[in-house]
Amino acid sequence: LYLQNELIVHTSGSIHINVLETASTVYGVFYPLQTFSKNREVNFKDVTLCVEGCTPEVTAKLLSLASQLSGKVVELTSEKRMAIHVAAVFACNFTNFMYALSQKLLADQNLDFELIRPLILETAAKVQELMPVEAQTGPALRKDVITIKEHQDFLKNQPNLLRLYEELTKEIVNFYKPL
Amino acid sequence: LYLQNELIVHTSGSIHINVLETASTVYGVFYPLQTFSKNREVNFKDVTLCVEGCTPEVTAKLLSLASQLSGKVVELTSEKRMAIHVAAVFACNFTNFMYALSQKLLADQNLDFELIRPLILETAAKVQELMPVEAQTGPALRKDVITIKEHQDFLKNQPNLLRLYEELTKEIVNFYKPL
Repeated sequence: LYLQNELIVHTSGSIHINVLETASTVYGVFYPLQTFSKNREVNFKDVTLCVEGCTPEVTAKLLSLASQLSGKVVELTSEKRMAIHVAAVFACNFTNFMYALSQKLLADQNLDFELIRPLILETAAKVQELMPVEAQTGPALRKDVITIKEHQDFLKNQPNLLRLYEELTKEIVNFYKPL
Repeated sequence: LYLQNELIVHTSGSIHINVLETASTVYGVFYPLQTFSKNREVNFKDVTLCVEGCTPEVTAKLLSLASQLSGKVVELTSEKRMAIHVAAVFACNFTNFMYALSQKLLADQNLDFELIRPLILETAAKVQELMPVEAQTGPALRKDVITIKEHQDFLKNQPNLLRLYEELTKEIVNFYKPL
Protein backbone atom coordinates (compact mmCIF):
# COMPACT_ATOMS: atom_id res chain seq x y z
CA LEU A 1 0.00 0.00 0.00
CA TYR A 2 1.37 3.40 -0.95
CA LEU A 3 -0.93 6.41 -1.07
CA GLN A 4 1.64 9.19 -1.80
CA ASN A 5 0.07 12.34 -0.30
CA GLU A 6 -3.28 10.95 0.83
CA LEU A 7 -4.07 10.95 4.52
CA ILE A 8 -4.19 7.52 6.09
CA VAL A 9 -4.92 6.73 9.76
CA HIS A 10 -5.19 3.61 11.85
CA THR A 11 -7.68 3.29 14.71
CA SER A 12 -5.81 1.02 17.14
CA GLY A 13 -4.98 1.78 20.75
CA SER A 14 -1.82 -0.29 20.89
CA ILE A 15 -0.16 0.15 17.47
CA HIS A 16 2.57 2.78 17.02
CA ILE A 17 1.97 5.59 14.52
CA ASN A 18 5.18 4.58 12.71
CA VAL A 19 3.65 1.48 11.12
CA LEU A 20 2.10 3.85 8.56
CA GLU A 21 5.28 5.73 7.58
CA THR A 22 5.81 3.68 4.44
CA ALA A 23 2.14 3.91 3.41
CA SER A 24 1.90 7.67 2.81
CA THR A 25 3.67 10.93 3.57
CA VAL A 26 0.57 12.00 5.52
CA TYR A 27 -0.46 9.61 8.28
CA GLY A 28 -1.79 9.45 11.78
CA VAL A 29 -3.90 7.70 14.40
CA PHE A 30 -7.58 8.12 15.16
CA TYR A 31 -8.36 5.94 18.18
CA PRO A 32 -11.86 5.86 19.69
CA LEU A 33 -11.53 4.87 23.35
CA GLN A 34 -14.77 2.94 23.63
CA THR A 35 -16.18 -0.58 23.74
CA PHE A 36 -18.27 -1.60 20.75
CA SER A 37 -20.57 -4.62 20.47
CA LYS A 38 -23.09 -5.76 17.93
CA ASN A 39 -26.65 -4.98 19.12
CA ARG A 40 -25.52 -1.90 21.00
CA GLU A 41 -25.64 1.66 19.66
CA VAL A 42 -23.05 4.10 20.99
CA ASN A 43 -23.44 7.88 20.93
CA PHE A 44 -20.23 9.01 19.23
CA LYS A 45 -20.50 12.46 20.86
CA ASP A 46 -19.52 10.81 24.17
CA VAL A 47 -16.61 8.77 22.81
CA THR A 48 -13.14 9.96 23.76
CA LEU A 49 -11.13 10.29 20.52
CA CYS A 50 -7.33 10.08 20.79
CA VAL A 51 -5.48 11.45 17.77
CA GLU A 52 -1.86 11.66 16.68
CA GLY A 53 -0.45 13.06 13.42
CA CYS A 54 2.92 12.59 11.73
CA THR A 55 3.33 16.40 11.67
CA PRO A 56 1.71 19.28 13.62
CA GLU A 57 -0.37 20.05 10.50
CA VAL A 58 -1.74 16.51 10.31
CA THR A 59 -2.43 16.54 14.05
CA ALA A 60 -4.36 19.81 13.64
CA LYS A 61 -6.40 18.31 10.82
CA LEU A 62 -7.20 15.20 12.87
CA LEU A 63 -8.12 17.30 15.93
CA SER A 64 -10.50 19.33 13.79
CA LEU A 65 -12.10 16.25 12.26
CA ALA A 66 -12.42 14.55 15.67
CA SER A 67 -14.02 17.65 17.21
CA GLN A 68 -16.83 17.44 14.67
CA LEU A 69 -17.61 13.91 15.85
CA SER A 70 -17.11 14.06 19.60
CA GLY A 71 -17.00 16.43 22.54
CA LYS A 72 -13.99 14.63 24.03
CA VAL A 73 -10.87 14.90 21.89
CA VAL A 74 -7.26 14.60 22.96
CA GLU A 75 -3.86 14.51 21.25
CA LEU A 76 -1.75 11.62 22.54
CA THR A 77 1.67 10.28 21.60
CA SER A 78 1.89 6.58 20.76
CA GLU A 79 3.48 5.98 24.20
CA LYS A 80 0.62 7.65 26.09
CA ARG A 81 -1.92 5.93 23.88
CA MET A 82 -0.43 2.59 24.97
CA ALA A 83 -0.89 3.63 28.62
CA ILE A 84 -4.52 4.54 28.06
CA HIS A 85 -5.09 1.30 26.16
CA VAL A 86 -3.79 -0.74 29.11
CA ALA A 87 -5.90 1.39 31.48
CA ALA A 88 -8.92 0.65 29.26
CA VAL A 89 -8.32 -3.10 29.55
CA PHE A 90 -8.63 -2.74 33.33
CA ALA A 91 -11.54 -0.24 33.27
CA CYS A 92 -13.56 -2.01 30.60
CA ASN A 93 -12.49 -5.57 29.67
CA PHE A 94 -11.54 -6.73 33.18
CA THR A 95 -14.51 -4.85 34.63
CA ASN A 96 -16.91 -6.60 32.26
CA PHE A 97 -15.32 -9.88 33.26
CA MET A 98 -16.14 -9.07 36.89
CA TYR A 99 -19.74 -8.54 35.75
CA ALA A 100 -19.63 -11.90 33.93
CA LEU A 101 -18.43 -13.66 37.09
CA SER A 102 -21.27 -12.06 39.06
CA GLN A 103 -23.67 -13.22 36.34
CA LYS A 104 -22.38 -16.76 36.84
CA LEU A 105 -22.67 -16.58 40.65
CA LEU A 106 -26.27 -15.39 40.37
CA ALA A 107 -27.21 -17.93 37.69
CA ASP A 108 -25.87 -20.76 39.87
CA GLN A 109 -28.53 -19.79 42.44
CA ASN A 110 -31.28 -19.10 39.89
CA LEU A 111 -31.10 -15.40 40.72
CA ASP A 112 -31.99 -12.84 38.07
CA PHE A 113 -29.05 -10.74 36.81
CA GLU A 114 -31.52 -7.83 36.78
CA LEU A 115 -31.14 -7.65 40.58
CA ILE A 116 -27.54 -6.50 40.33
CA ARG A 117 -27.85 -4.14 37.34
CA PRO A 118 -28.57 -1.02 39.48
CA LEU A 119 -25.45 -1.72 41.54
CA ILE A 120 -23.32 -2.00 38.41
CA LEU A 121 -24.70 1.25 37.02
CA GLU A 122 -24.24 3.14 40.30
CA THR A 123 -20.66 1.85 40.66
CA ALA A 124 -19.83 3.40 37.27
CA ALA A 125 -21.94 6.54 37.84
CA LYS A 126 -20.18 7.18 41.15
CA VAL A 127 -16.75 7.54 39.51
CA GLN A 128 -18.13 10.04 37.03
CA GLU A 129 -17.99 12.42 40.04
CA LEU A 130 -15.62 10.85 42.55
CA MET A 131 -12.21 9.34 41.85
CA PRO A 132 -12.19 5.52 42.08
CA VAL A 133 -9.52 5.51 44.78
CA GLU A 134 -11.98 7.46 46.97
CA ALA A 135 -15.04 5.46 45.88
CA GLN A 136 -13.83 2.03 47.06
CA THR A 137 -16.15 0.14 49.43
CA GLY A 138 -16.48 -3.47 50.58
CA PRO A 139 -15.02 -6.04 52.95
CA ALA A 140 -11.45 -5.91 51.57
CA LEU A 141 -11.22 -2.14 52.11
CA ARG A 142 -12.66 -2.49 55.62
CA LYS A 143 -10.39 -5.49 56.32
CA ASP A 144 -13.59 -7.22 57.42
CA VAL A 145 -12.03 -10.65 57.92
CA ILE A 146 -15.28 -12.25 59.14
CA THR A 147 -17.15 -11.42 55.93
CA ILE A 148 -14.13 -12.32 53.78
CA LYS A 149 -13.99 -15.72 55.51
CA GLU A 150 -17.72 -16.29 54.81
CA HIS A 151 -17.20 -15.42 51.16
CA GLN A 152 -14.25 -17.82 50.96
CA ASP A 153 -16.42 -20.58 52.46
CA PHE A 154 -19.17 -19.80 49.96
CA LEU A 155 -16.68 -20.11 47.06
CA LYS A 156 -14.86 -23.19 48.35
CA ASN A 157 -16.14 -25.44 45.55
CA GLN A 158 -15.25 -22.97 42.79
CA PRO A 159 -11.44 -22.84 42.87
CA ASN A 160 -11.00 -20.31 40.04
CA LEU A 161 -13.45 -17.86 41.59
CA LEU A 162 -11.96 -18.41 45.03
CA ARG A 163 -8.41 -17.76 43.80
CA LEU A 164 -9.48 -14.56 42.03
CA TYR A 165 -11.45 -13.44 45.09
CA GLU A 166 -8.42 -13.96 47.34
CA GLU A 167 -5.97 -12.36 44.91
CA LEU A 168 -8.10 -9.24 44.41
CA THR A 169 -8.86 -8.96 48.13
CA LYS A 170 -5.13 -9.10 48.87
CA GLU A 171 -4.37 -6.46 46.21
CA ILE A 172 -7.03 -4.11 47.60
CA VAL A 173 -5.64 -4.51 51.13
CA ASN A 174 -2.11 -3.76 49.83
CA PHE A 175 -3.29 -0.84 47.70
CA TYR A 176 -4.90 0.88 50.69
CA LYS A 177 -2.20 0.01 53.21
CA PRO A 178 -0.94 3.16 54.98
CA LEU A 179 2.64 3.91 53.92
CA LEU B 1 -31.05 -6.77 73.56
CA TYR B 2 -34.54 -8.22 73.81
CA LEU B 3 -37.47 -6.44 72.19
CA GLN B 4 -40.26 -9.00 72.83
CA ASN B 5 -42.72 -8.44 69.98
CA GLU B 6 -41.15 -5.45 68.27
CA LEU B 7 -39.90 -5.87 64.71
CA ILE B 8 -36.12 -5.78 64.36
CA VAL B 9 -34.15 -6.15 61.11
CA HIS B 10 -30.49 -6.13 60.18
CA THR B 11 -29.25 -4.68 56.87
CA SER B 12 -26.24 -6.87 56.12
CA GLY B 13 -25.69 -8.92 52.98
CA SER B 14 -23.64 -11.64 54.59
CA ILE B 15 -25.19 -12.17 58.05
CA HIS B 16 -27.75 -14.95 58.55
CA ILE B 17 -31.26 -13.98 59.67
CA ASN B 18 -30.88 -16.27 62.70
CA VAL B 19 -28.56 -13.89 64.56
CA LEU B 20 -31.69 -11.96 65.53
CA GLU B 21 -33.72 -14.87 66.88
CA THR B 22 -32.89 -14.10 70.47
CA ALA B 23 -33.52 -10.36 70.07
CA SER B 24 -37.26 -10.48 69.33
CA THR B 25 -40.02 -12.82 68.24
CA VAL B 26 -40.43 -10.70 65.11
CA TYR B 27 -37.26 -10.27 63.07
CA GLY B 28 -35.92 -10.12 59.56
CA VAL B 29 -33.44 -8.73 57.07
CA PHE B 30 -33.65 -5.57 54.99
CA TYR B 31 -30.57 -5.51 52.75
CA PRO B 32 -30.06 -2.69 50.24
CA LEU B 33 -27.86 -4.04 47.41
CA GLN B 34 -26.02 -0.83 46.66
CA THR B 35 -22.72 0.97 47.21
CA PHE B 36 -22.84 4.04 49.44
CA SER B 37 -20.16 6.68 49.87
CA LYS B 38 -20.03 10.03 51.57
CA ASN B 39 -20.43 12.87 49.05
CA ARG B 40 -22.63 10.78 46.80
CA GLU B 41 -26.44 10.81 46.81
CA VAL B 42 -28.21 7.63 45.75
CA ASN B 43 -31.79 7.47 44.48
CA PHE B 44 -33.37 4.84 46.73
CA LYS B 45 -36.03 4.08 44.10
CA ASP B 46 -33.32 2.35 42.03
CA VAL B 47 -31.82 0.35 44.90
CA THR B 48 -32.53 -3.39 44.90
CA LEU B 49 -33.92 -4.27 48.35
CA CYS B 50 -33.54 -7.89 49.49
CA VAL B 51 -35.83 -8.85 52.36
CA GLU B 52 -36.32 -11.92 54.53
CA GLY B 53 -38.70 -12.40 57.44
CA CYS B 54 -38.79 -14.95 60.26
CA THR B 55 -42.38 -15.87 59.23
CA PRO B 56 -44.43 -15.37 56.05
CA GLU B 57 -46.28 -12.54 57.83
CA VAL B 58 -43.06 -10.69 58.64
CA THR B 59 -41.82 -11.24 55.09
CA ALA B 60 -45.06 -9.76 53.74
CA LYS B 61 -44.69 -6.74 56.00
CA LEU B 62 -41.07 -6.20 54.90
CA LEU B 63 -41.99 -6.61 51.21
CA SER B 64 -44.71 -3.99 51.63
CA LEU B 65 -42.37 -1.56 53.39
CA ALA B 66 -39.61 -2.12 50.82
CA SER B 67 -42.03 -1.55 47.93
CA GLN B 68 -42.77 1.93 49.26
CA LEU B 69 -39.07 2.78 49.06
CA SER B 70 -37.89 1.08 45.88
CA GLY B 71 -39.09 -0.28 42.58
CA LYS B 72 -36.84 -3.34 42.88
CA VAL B 73 -37.76 -5.60 45.77
CA VAL B 74 -37.02 -9.30 46.18
CA GLU B 75 -37.45 -11.90 48.89
CA LEU B 76 -34.25 -13.89 49.40
CA THR B 77 -33.24 -16.60 51.85
CA SER B 78 -30.04 -16.04 53.83
CA GLU B 79 -28.28 -18.54 51.54
CA LYS B 80 -29.25 -16.69 48.35
CA ARG B 81 -28.46 -13.36 49.97
CA MET B 82 -24.92 -14.62 50.57
CA ALA B 83 -24.63 -15.51 46.87
CA ILE B 84 -25.76 -12.03 45.81
CA HIS B 85 -23.39 -10.46 48.33
CA VAL B 86 -20.43 -12.32 46.83
CA ALA B 87 -21.66 -11.39 43.33
CA ALA B 88 -21.80 -7.77 44.48
CA VAL B 89 -18.17 -7.89 45.61
CA PHE B 90 -17.22 -8.86 42.05
CA ALA B 91 -19.63 -6.47 40.32
CA CYS B 92 -18.95 -3.47 42.54
CA ASN B 93 -15.91 -3.69 44.85
CA PHE B 94 -13.58 -5.51 42.46
CA THR B 95 -14.92 -3.46 39.55
CA ASN B 96 -14.16 -0.22 41.37
CA PHE B 97 -10.68 -1.56 42.08
CA MET B 98 -10.21 -2.07 38.31
CA TYR B 99 -11.18 1.60 37.91
CA ALA B 100 -8.65 2.55 40.64
CA LEU B 101 -5.89 0.68 38.82
CA SER B 102 -6.77 2.48 35.58
CA GLN B 103 -6.67 5.76 37.53
CA LYS B 104 -3.14 4.89 38.66
CA LEU B 105 -2.00 3.92 35.14
CA LEU B 106 -3.30 7.21 33.75
CA ALA B 107 -1.88 9.32 36.60
CA ASP B 108 1.56 7.77 36.05
CA GLN B 109 1.49 9.29 32.53
CA ASN B 110 -0.10 12.58 33.62
CA LEU B 111 -3.27 11.63 31.78
CA ASP B 112 -6.63 12.96 32.99
CA PHE B 113 -8.97 10.30 34.46
CA GLU B 114 -11.75 12.23 32.70
CA LEU B 115 -10.59 10.62 29.42
CA ILE B 116 -11.68 7.16 30.53
CA ARG B 117 -14.93 8.08 32.29
CA PRO B 118 -17.13 7.64 29.18
CA LEU B 119 -15.69 4.15 28.65
CA ILE B 120 -16.47 3.19 32.26
CA LEU B 121 -20.04 4.47 31.97
CA GLU B 122 -20.65 2.73 28.63
CA THR B 123 -19.24 -0.55 29.97
CA ALA B 124 -21.84 -0.47 32.75
CA ALA B 125 -24.64 0.88 30.52
CA LYS B 126 -24.05 -1.93 28.02
CA VAL B 127 -24.87 -4.67 30.52
CA GLN B 128 -28.12 -2.93 31.44
CA GLU B 129 -29.30 -4.34 28.09
CA LEU B 130 -26.91 -7.15 27.17
CA MET B 131 -25.67 -9.91 29.46
CA PRO B 132 -22.00 -9.47 30.48
CA VAL B 133 -20.98 -12.82 29.03
CA GLU B 134 -22.13 -11.48 25.61
CA ALA B 135 -20.69 -7.99 26.16
CA GLN B 136 -17.05 -9.01 26.64
CA THR B 137 -14.50 -7.33 24.34
CA GLY B 138 -10.73 -6.88 24.37
CA PRO B 139 -7.45 -8.64 23.58
CA ALA B 140 -7.97 -11.57 26.00
CA LEU B 141 -11.33 -12.48 24.41
CA ARG B 142 -9.82 -12.20 20.92
CA LYS B 143 -6.71 -14.13 22.05
CA ASP B 144 -4.77 -11.23 20.52
CA VAL B 145 -1.34 -12.37 21.69
CA ILE B 146 0.51 -9.48 20.00
CA THR B 147 -1.43 -6.83 21.93
CA ILE B 148 -1.25 -8.86 25.16
CA LYS B 149 2.54 -9.05 24.75
CA GLU B 150 2.75 -5.28 24.26
CA HIS B 151 0.68 -4.71 27.39
CA GLN B 152 2.93 -7.08 29.35
CA ASP B 153 5.99 -5.13 28.15
CA PHE B 154 4.32 -1.88 29.16
CA LEU B 155 3.66 -3.24 32.67
CA LYS B 156 7.05 -4.92 33.15
CA ASN B 157 8.15 -2.51 35.89
CA GLN B 158 4.90 -2.82 37.85
CA PRO B 159 4.90 -6.44 39.06
CA ASN B 160 1.55 -6.30 40.90
CA LEU B 161 -0.26 -4.83 37.91
CA LEU B 162 1.50 -7.25 35.56
CA ARG B 163 0.53 -10.27 37.68
CA LEU B 164 -3.11 -9.17 37.85
CA TYR B 165 -3.15 -8.46 34.11
CA GLU B 166 -1.81 -11.93 33.35
CA GLU B 167 -4.10 -13.68 35.83
CA LEU B 168 -7.25 -11.97 34.54
CA THR B 169 -6.24 -12.47 30.92
CA LYS B 170 -5.76 -16.18 31.60
CA GLU B 171 -9.14 -16.42 33.37
CA ILE B 172 -10.92 -14.69 30.47
CA VAL B 173 -9.29 -17.06 27.97
CA ASN B 174 -10.37 -20.07 30.10
CA PHE B 175 -13.87 -18.71 30.64
CA TYR B 176 -14.47 -18.38 26.90
CA LYS B 177 -12.72 -21.59 25.89
CA PRO B 178 -15.04 -23.76 23.77
CA LEU B 179 -16.04 -26.91 25.66
